[in-house]
Parts: sequence; C-alpha cells; structure tokens
Amino acid sequence: MGIVLYELAAADPAVRFSPHCWKVRIALAHKGLKTEGLPWRFTEKQVIGFSGQDSVPVLIDDGETVCDSWRIALHLETRYPNAPALFGGTGAVPLAQFANAWADSALVPAVSRIILLDIYDCLDPVDREYFRASREKRFGQSLEAVVADRPSNLSAFRKALTPLRQILRERDFLSGTGPAYADYCVFGMFMWARCCSTASLLDEDDPVFLWRERLLDAFKGLARSAPRASAKGTP
Amino acid sequence: MGIVLYELAAADPAVRFSPHCWKVRIALAHKGLKTEGLPWRFTEKQVIGFSGQDSVPVLIDDGETVCDSWRIALHLETRYPNAPALFGGTGAVPLAQFANAWADSALVPAVSRIILLDIYDCLDPVDREYFRASREKRFGQSLEAVVADRPSNLSAFRKALTPLRQILRERDFLSGTGPAYADYCVFGMFMWARCCSTASLLDEDDPVFLWRERLLDAFKGLARSAPRASAKGTP
Repeated sequence: MGIVLYELAAADPAVRFSPHCWKVRIALAHKGLKTEGLPWRFTEKQVIGFSGQDSVPVLIDDGETVCDSWRIALHLETRYPNAPALFGGTGAVPLAQFANAWADSALVPAVSRIILLDIYDCLDPVDREYFRASREKRFGQSLEAVVADRPSNLSAFRKALTPLRQILRERDFLSGTGPAYADYCVFGMFMWARCCSTASLLDEDDPVFLWRERLLDAFKGLARSAPRASAKGTP
Repeated sequence: MGIVLYELAAADPAVRFSPHCWKVRIALAHKGLKTEGLPWRFTEKQVIGFSGQDSVPVLIDDGETVCDSWRIALHLETRYPNAPALFGGTGAVPLAQFANAWADSALVPAVSRIILLDIYDCLDPVDREYFRASREKRFGQSLEAVVADRPSNLSAFRKALTPLRQILRERDFLSGTGPAYADYCVFGMFMWARCCSTASLLDEDDPVFLWRERLLDAFKGLARSAPRASAKGTP
C-alpha cells in the first residue's frame, strides 16, 4: 500500500510549506522511502478526521496511521531499521527530541515574526480567514503588526540561532559529520520560510547559511527544488 | 598524581559556584573519579597562568592540563572509557554539545538577571571590583539595574526553560532514563544559583523542579550537600 503523507499546502497545491511536514519529508528521504504527498489545507479538518488529529503531518504507512512529526520519526526508525538511521543510537534520541523542542519553542515564534504575512498571502482563499483569526489571537496583534519591525525581528531570529551556530562552527551538521533527524527538525524551519517567503534570513558568512546550503543540496536537491510561492507584487 | 580541579570560589573558599565548574564536578562524580578541588578567585589569573587560560575550570589529570568544561568532558570520556559513559554513544556527543551551547547562550544570561548581585555579595573582596566592572560592561547596566525587575526576570528564565520542560514531561532526564553530561550542562546553571543565591527559581510542580531534585540527590547528594553562601542580611 506504500506511504502517504498529508502535507499542508498553499493556494498552489504544489507548495508545501509546513515546517513539521518538512521534518517528515526529509526524514522519509533519509530513509530512502518513496512517499505520495497529498496536499491538505488548514480548514480541511474532516479530510484527516480519521486520524483523530486536526493538523498535519499525518502519515499512512501500509495502512497504519501515525500523527505528529516526532512520533512519525520514531515510527520510521523502528519500522525501517535497515535503512539509514535517523538517530545516532538510542542515546541520541532524547537529545534529538530536545533539539526539536528547541526549534519549536525558540525558532517557530522567531520565524513567524518575519514570515507570518507572507504565509497569509500564499494561502488558498479558503484558509485565510481561519489563519488570520487563529494567528492574531495567538500573537495578540494583527498579522501586519507582528511582522512590522522586520530589522528587529530578523535580529532576534539570528540571535536565537546562537547555540546552533556554535555547533556549526565546529561541525558540518548538528548531528555530527552527517545530517540526521535533529538537523531536519531545525532545517524544517528554514524550508517553511523558503516556501512561502522571499525574506533573506541569513548572512552568507553565517555557519548556519552554509549548513542550510548543504541540506538544500542533500537527497539530490530535494529541498532546493521544492516549489515556492511566487512573491506578492513581484514578477 | 591524581586529579586536581581549579574551581571558582566565593569569599568562603568552600563555596564553589561556577556553573561550568559544576558541569565538570558532576561529570567527575559520574565517572567515579576522586578529585582534589582547589579554590580559585577571578583575579588570581597568575595562579592558572600555566594553563594558557585565564578562567576555570582547569583540570590537571595525572600531570596533563585540560581547560574548558566541554573539552574536559571529552577528555574524561576518552581517558576513562570503562567508567560510566558521559555520552550515550558517539551520536549523542554533538547533540550534548548543542544542549551545552543552549544552556550557555539561553540560560546563563537569564540566570544572571536574577542572581548577579547575589554573586557579587558572596565574592571575596579582592574579586568584587573586577566582577562589577566586567559584568556592568557586559550588560551595559549596573548590577543593581540588571536584577531590578525580579518578577520579569524570573518569568523570562522560566520561559527559557520551555524546551527542557517539554522533554522532562516525558523522561526523567534530558539524556533519557539516566543522567548524563547533557543533564549536567544544564544542572550546572541551577547549582550556580543555589550556591550563591536564595532565589527560588522554580515552582514545585514544574517538571524541571523534579528533575533538579533528582540531580541534587545523585551521587550520594553531592550537589545537595555542597556549601552555599550565607544570604546577605539573613541569619
């Protein structure tokens, strides 16, 4: 029956921009698993109702439904033990989970403050009202106000990357000499921004920039070739 | 020749409060290695001049000098491979280094904003001028101004613990079922505060509180029984 992944999609259904779906998509590539990615919109709650969840990623692996990017990663590691490992041994699993929790708690808000309006602009009209209402409630501000001070928000994001940058001064990847799931958890944040925004997040002399380049090139350029939303108001 | 560790000391030389020295002290206990801890003061640069460094921890292991808490941990793991492992396999090493970098970049500033004046108060008079000048330069404020808004600073610190808290909701330790070096990197921050301040950093229902309790009890209560500076103005 193969593997099916429900992925958050923009107005252009080829544009898949969720950071958490990207974690899974790269993990599947790491494992060498062919996957059918199905576009899903924020307001299509009923489409994934079978999963008991109201958000993606939702994976169906040979008839078994698995939700939540972290649980999907553990599922893939257990189910495909002979494919390349997503974690460098059991001792690395809790620490990869910590890196994931760090990305979600420190980077999701920081990236949001840069790209939130770009996300809105790339959404299908059916999702826009839901997105604006839920995010404006979360931030306690209009989308426009959240992203208004781009220089400060960009500076705060780059500062939030400090611990990652420190590791990447010494190593090619967060996980060591090769990329693994902890890298994908963080890289998902950059793919989120890349797929819906033209904002330049990193200076070229930042070790994080070079790491991102390596991951854009990984798996035959899977991430680099992923469709991006066309910028509003630009050709 | 045994192992000697230079540790930052307060006016009371039994009070050893550096977070980075605590990382090493617990790592040595984890490895079951007896160590002679020598008190060192900020202004005694010449005492550790032989190391090429001007800050502690400085470890002398059977005549070999090793500086920097991270390099000391790697040294101990390599030199004492048959003692309990500080890292859960090679795949866990870069991720433990990330947890260490996170503690240093996110928690050191946040804890400083709570205890900076308490540190000053517990220092030997010979260190006070150096400490005030260097920290006021770093923060761009007087020590008193840095710690002035205790409720906000405490709230920011607790918020900074979010990714750690998320892991500790599911696991006893950051490293998994037992403590390892990544835990000690974070726990060092709490020992720093405990040794020089009476500030209450955590609510008792915080999973981080319970984790800290487990580490205070580890190694026969090594951390819990460590001397603390007497609070200024209290009996």
